[in-house]
Amino acid sequence: MNNFDKYAELLLKKCLGMKKGQPLVITSPIECIDFVRILAKQAYEMGVHDIYFDFTDSYLKSYQLLNFEDNEFENSLFFNKKIYDEYAKKDGAFLMLSAEESDVYKDVDSDKLAKANYISRTSRPIYKEKQGKYEVAWCIAMVSTEISSKKVFPNDEKSKERLWNEIFKACLVLEDNPLDAWDKKKENNKKNVNKLNSLNLKKLHYTNSLGTDFSVELGKGAIWCGADEEMPDGTPLIVNMPTEEIFTSPLRDSTEGIVYASKPLIYNGTLIDKFWLKFENGKVVDYDSEVGKDVLKTLIEFDEGSSYLGEVALVEYDSPISNSNILFYNTLYDENAACHLALGIGFPSCYENGVNMSKEELLEVGVNQSNEHTDFMIGTSDLRIVGTTFDNEEVIIFENGNFAWN
Amino acid sequence: MNNFDKYAELLLKKCLGMKKGQPLVITSPIECIDFVRILAKQAYEMGVHDIYFDFTDSYLKSYQLLNFEDNEFENSLFFNKKIYDEYAKKDGAFLMLSAEESDVYKDVDSDKLAKANYISRTSRPIYKEKQGKYEVAWCIAMVSTEISSKKVFPNDEKSKERLWNEIFKACLVLEDNPLDAWDKKKENNKKNVNKLNSLNLKKLHYTNSLGTDFSVELGKGAIWCGADEEMPDGTPLIVNMPTEEIFTSPLRDSTEGIVYASKPLIYNGTLIDKFWLKFENGKVVDYDSEVGKDVLKTLIEFDEGSSYLGEVALVEYDSPISNSNILFYNTLYDENAACHLALGIGFPSCYENGVNMSKEELLEVGVNQSNEHTDFMIGTSDLRIVGTTFDNEEVIIFENGNFAWN
Repeated sequence: MNNFDKYAELLLKKCLGMKKGQPLVITSPIECIDFVRILAKQAYEMGVHDIYFDFTDSYLKSYQLLNFEDNEFENSLFFNKKIYDEYAKKDGAFLMLSAEESDVYKDVDSDKLAKANYISRTSRPIYKEKQGKYEVAWCIAMVSTEISSKKVFPNDEKSKERLWNEIFKACLVLEDNPLDAWDKKKENNKKNVNKLNSLNLKKLHYTNSLGTDFSVELGKGAIWCGADEEMPDGTPLIVNMPTEEIFTSPLRDSTEGIVYASKPLIYNGTLIDKFWLKFENGKVVDYDSEVGKDVLKTLIEFDEGSSYLGEVALVEYDSPISNSNILFYNTLYDENAACHLALGIGFPSCYENGVNMSKEELLEVGVNQSNEHTDFMIGTSDLRIVGTTFDNEEVIIFENGNFAWN
Repeated sequence: MNNFDKYAELLLKKCLGMKKGQPLVITSPIECIDFVRILAKQAYEMGVHDIYFDFTDSYLKSYQLLNFEDNEFENSLFFNKKIYDEYAKKDGAFLMLSAEESDVYKDVDSDKLAKANYISRTSRPIYKEKQGKYEVAWCIAMVSTEISSKKVFPNDEKSKERLWNEIFKACLVLEDNPLDAWDKKKENNKKNVNKLNSLNLKKLHYTNSLGTDFSVELGKGAIWCGADEEMPDGTPLIVNMPTEEIFTSPLRDSTEGIVYASKPLIYNGTLIDKFWLKFENGKVVDYDSEVGKDVLKTLIEFDEGSSYLGEVALVEYDSPISNSNILFYNTLYDENAACHLALGIGFPSCYENGVNMSKEELLEVGVNQSNEHTDFMIGTSDLRIVGTTFDNEEVIIFENGNFAWN
């Protein structure tokens, strides 16, 4: 097996836990057709019969966005993803292959991008609900394309091959047995997750030299999770490949203070950089950005819930992706290089019995609801996080960017 | 403009007559993404807003066919083309870019291919009806892919570029002004069409040295057509690019005698070669083939109408594609190298007032009905066709493979 074969096997077997006869949806840039053929062939060999291929192309999408008139978005089949609901109904698995090609969209109005995004997200409510509860298998993984690799390695003629190699490295594909390597990594992650859950934390207070000084509170039922998602039938999933993070959903109305981003954010294909957000009673009440302030506004005002946090995630500054010192311009990777937060919907699986709750019930216990969920990085080498337990004891969680107890 | 730009302009402006604001469906092999981007960009510049991209890949399709179980075909979204009906309803234009990649399907059961084909065809009844009446603009054109070009030029390392060049040549893209060149060609074609229509033919009798000896009759309302299709609003179309043929639909029950194919036929991706068909009262009553007899059987038995003729087409043996001496393994091109017939549905536009008739009415006047329409070549350098007019006069139509009067 070459590295592409090994990567495909990792995604299908370890991330999605594909079963015989299970339908599969593969979303991929057209440019990666060769890798999709490898995936399809392996999936069929595993006994999959029915695969739906959802091909995308940034150039075609940007042309469409530049030319669409406002009233044509709603009914457009271009951005509509209702076919996901068809496959969610029959318990299909979903593999989303992503490449960050934001530069292609530089001439497109950010409102139009947001609108297209909104249609894509809201046109598949059944999928979205099942995805949040891990009732369908899903995984987001990166692929290397001409444009996305040039962004990461602008001066390398063989940028595409080089980015593929970084993907293989970060996903442990270069190990003798990537499947075993991920079992070991998950085991280690589990130790930190168990430690955090045993602490019974009610509050986290973040500070660093950027100026970050804010706190969030956790509900009684909050659960820390990390790369050990399970479907109701017990099938283990890895929904983000790779993943280093340990995360939970904070109480929606609890965030207070100011937080500075430590890395750039790509939203709807556009760069937001050097920004801060100020929270009161959980809600963003002020913000600024040196680059892309209008796009940041679009994100925050996307809907009611997009101005509240849905996720707090802990990632050691001394992690493989962080140590690579590569800025991937892709949240999937960059979020594994630093502690982060997310504006938008929280995770039902991060709250006790949350997967059996309705949206209204989740909101009631403090898990934020939104059609948005966007991560942004806040971790630095001097980040300190002090926790307070429900017994009002203080405990240091992070010191100098890493877990205090490791 | 390079040749790709010129080809794109020809297809959009001259073949489809694209109008500002008109929706567009482009079907293309994934491999031709670069050409699709050119098409899309030009279409948007012409004022098109809404394009639906229907990408195909022979490898993925063959994997799917090899692995689908029988009961999974019906509901499969893979072969379903109902989205065409959505676009037909809003008067979209349809550009089908085709490449003959039959070799990829060599391990696939011909019944499965036929089934997938059947679903594709019958899942878009509105499109099919409007297509037949030119109520939607449509065009089939060839593109060059790795596999299809290797089939045509097996020993040429640059087969893909070479086939593109043959496409440009056959479509007059290498002329200074391809759009004007097609106007001239259509004018010339029109003269032969007018001559044939003025003859008031009721019968054609074909003979050649292969052994062909058969006749077909034409109804009183039969109309000869040739590359001058028009939409109800007067927009001229070229539905097959390129096209040399002049064609009509014969009386369904009138075919008598034996006809020998003069070139191979690719059906559902499989080769049928050196075959003959024997007709009685319009219907195929016997047949044989040296290669692909089972596939020929599938075609003839596809439905009731697929054992009757829906088209007779006249092409001079001395035509550009014929003179190129290249076998393209693609009916779109090869049909322009020789006189041919088609099993399956006839053309409403080839019968007086036919576009306003229902299927039942068309069948009543003798225009065959079917979900099938497959051309096969019968023209040779010694083909002779003798016509009989409704005034019972004999007139020689073809002599030595060409129009007798040119």
